[in-house]
Amino acid sequence: MDIEQIFSKCDHTLLRQDSTASQIRDLCDQAIANNCASVCIPPCHVAGAKRYVGDNISICTVIGFPNGYATTAVKAYEAADAIKNGADEIDMVVNISMVKDNCWNDVRQDIREVRAACKDKVLKVIIECCLLTEDEKIKLCGIVAECNADFIKTSTGFSTGGATIEDVKLLRKYSPPQVKVKAAGGIHTIREAEALIEAGADRIGSSHLLDDMLNTKNTLRCCDLNQDLKETDVAQHLAADSSIRAGLQDNDEFEEKNGKDVNIAQNIDDGSVDKADNQDAETHSDLESQ
Amino acid sequence: MDIEQIFSKCDHTLLRQDSTASQIRDLCDQAIANNCASVCIPPCHVAGAKRYVGDNISICTVIGFPNGYATTAVKAYEAADAIKNGADEIDMVVNISMVKDNCWNDVRQDIREVRAACKDKVLKVIIECCLLTEDEKIKLCGIVAECNADFIKTSTGFSTGGATIEDVKLLRKYSPPQVKVKAAGGIHTIREAEALIEAGADRIGSSHLLDDMLNTKNTLRCCDLNQDLKETDVAQHLAADSSIRAGLQDNDEFEEKNGKDVNIAQNIDDGSVDKADNQDAETHSDLESQ
Repeated sequence: MDIEQIFSKCDHTLLRQDSTASQIRDLCDQAIANNCASVCIPPCHVAGAKRYVGDNISICTVIGFPNGYATTAVKAYEAADAIKNGADEIDMVVNISMVKDNCWNDVRQDIREVRAACKDKVLKVIIECCLLTEDEKIKLCGIVAECNADFIKTSTGFSTGGATIEDVKLLRKYSPPQVKVKAAGGIHTIREAEALIEAGADRIGSSHLLDDMLNTKNTLRCCDLNQDLKETDVAQHLAADSSIRAGLQDNDEFEEKNGKDVNIAQNIDDGSVDKADNQDAETHSDLESQ
Repeated sequence: MDIEQIFSKCDHTLLRQDSTASQIRDLCDQAIANNCASVCIPPCHVAGAKRYVGDNISICTVIGFPNGYATTAVKAYEAADAIKNGADEIDMVVNISMVKDNCWNDVRQDIREVRAACKDKVLKVIIECCLLTEDEKIKLCGIVAECNADFIKTSTGFSTGGATIEDVKLLRKYSPPQVKVKAAGGIHTIREAEALIEAGADRIGSSHLLDDMLNTKNTLRCCDLNQDLKETDVAQHLAADSSIRAGLQDNDEFEEKNGKDVNIAQNIDDGSVDKADNQDAETHSDLESQ
């Protein structure tokens, strides 16, 4: 599979609790440069990211995440709030307590109210496969379809397990064709993403694919990992990354960064309190100002 | 320290994603029997628990949990919704992204809006110590106090670390006297709870203290663990547990359970799909009907 095809199906994801505005900016830049399907980010970053990216990339966020046990009223409110802030895609977590209590009408109602709040935006329903029996997964395939969700998604990445080939095949088998499958959680390499797509996944949620591509270049192991991933591909992607970043950003901070290698993992803010006292940002959702 | 004193400071907690109504009922019964400070449960179970316990125990729930990155509007809505459903205490998670971005005014506003939504109910602010520098923890002690929260709380129990003696001492040292300290996350034994209380904790969040007391009885190791925890204490607690459960519940399911030993961990529902199809519960929040 072509690496462009894989990135085009990737929700480039950053859902850490301590993700900074700078990290979200980098994520957006990388997703645009690599023509990803979307950026998947925390709700508190949606408004800022929307102002930052405009219509250059879809913005995906998470609702009732990761435990799924917010009330239905709160989930619906949260979805509407996210869309108002600029979200294009909503990844909600099913209420697993309701599943375990066999309250299937409540499970349906929970999804339906979020579906209504989403209007014409894309809705993905995370069923958290690692906590479910096979029967529960199959039952949920039917319910997710019945409630007109666009995707059924394997995992949050915050529980005891992530996407598996077996689960993707099962969700594909028991969902009608109009419901797509998103695999997420623990996907670290392009090879893993490719295998999950071949098993039936239409979308991949991952924080690591770009890192994997860059590491692949650094270690010159690209042909071991993926026959279609050549050094020239990597070079093209890196060039695209720089030029699109330059188009989006023209402040000094960006100019300084622009010559450096992109590195997703090493942008964590030191967060010194003294610095904080002197440099209160105007508002957290202004990605440009920090 | 007397074991009753420890339980009186305990928020008896069940925050698993797959917690069933039956498990929440048992948790309530146990908390009442042992005169705990509250039950701490997922938002989706608050309305049902309130109908089940009446005024026999305080109900605590969690907001923006566990990642803290819901928008401020959603957190405030969620707190108001929880209180409408019967919650007496609200444990909110601070927005850690705002902390890391030094957006202290936004951190304040996030807490203030939840404080306003809570009205006269108890507000605890979880700062998730394991993700913070010492300077950030100290800064947050001041902000939590400034925003009139009732408690500052160490951890969600869903991140990379839980309560430590060192953090409890630090939060006690840098919080004014009117702000109490709640230690939570990874507290498995009565001895640990006692040590945290001695370090300055006014409240303990734990899912395990009752189990520890029962195990202590089973293994006859009580005097090794805690000088004040004697077999007679355990017997008294178990007797109280049975009689209060009998007073609260009079249906067949309860009568059947009543003669058995209480076991928090072994009540997980099988969740068969066939069973589900025939037995859709009327509504998930009716704890009595399931």
